[in-house]
Amino acid sequence: MRLRVEAEVKPTEAREKVEAAIKQIFPTLELSLIGSSLVGESTRMESLDRLHELLRQQAIRDSARSVMLRSSRGNVVRFMLNRQVAFVGRVSFTGGESPLGPIVVTLEVPDIERLVDYLAPRTQEGKPIREVRY
Amino acid sequence: MRLRVEAEVKPTEAREKVEAAIKQIFPTLELSLIGSSLVGESTRMESLDRLHELLRQQAIRDSARSVMLRSSRGNVVRFMLNRQVAFVGRVSFTGGESPLGPIVVTLEVPDIERLVDYLAPRTQEGKPIREVRY
Repeated sequence: MRLRVEAEVKPTEAREKVEAAIKQIFPTLELSLIGSSLVGESTRMESLDRLHELLRQQAIRDSARSVMLRSSRGNVVRFMLNRQVAFVGRVSFTGGESPLGPIVVTLEVPDIERLVDYLAPRTQEGKPIREVRY
Repeated sequence: MRLRVEAEVKPTEAREKVEAAIKQIFPTLELSLIGSSLVGESTRMESLDRLHELLRQQAIRDSARSVMLRSSRGNVVRFMLNRQVAFVGRVSFTGGESPLGPIVVTLEVPDIERLVDYLAPRTQEGKPIREVRY
């Protein structure tokens, strides 16, 4: 598994605040500034623990599932999170058309469907039908 | 003439940077934080001097003119500026649909058309057809 998280720091933003927003979703990720973007990479599954937990807490697994499957191509899935919402510790998927820009998350895995089954399992009456570990 | 400028400071932004962005376009405006928004008001025509100058420098009077006339109602005109572009001292009109939000400018004047003729006169071959003072 390869995870890459990227967020361009816009002129009116504070780098530390953008960093804090990313850390709410990916607390263990080390971030560096490359040009004007904060970038973090990881190959450890634990990097996804908090995202997994938030999708469950917020009960948005079904919509997360459809966003992730829709935005996957081959063995790569790329989606965007609203960084203002991330700042307060919540997950919100976005189209990314904002001038401030989103947090861009790219995941590369041999088995996308299994990863999505792990992060955002199908639910029935609000409960996962089947839980898998990746 | 009543001018009101308003910009919500979003969680990942630095208040001073949003303030700096506004000051690039309205250098003499005093700003205060009301809730999470920076707000400045003025009744002095000089508050518009820099905007007037920038529209001329950038040669965007024709598009500024059409935006302003389109967004006027009665004796109020309200338009939105991209705050990231403002930060580098340039004027860019925006639809304002961004999560980070724009700089919202509201102008209340007895004679909107005259104000628009002053800020953004009709041009021909890049030159104002007629210059008016407000």
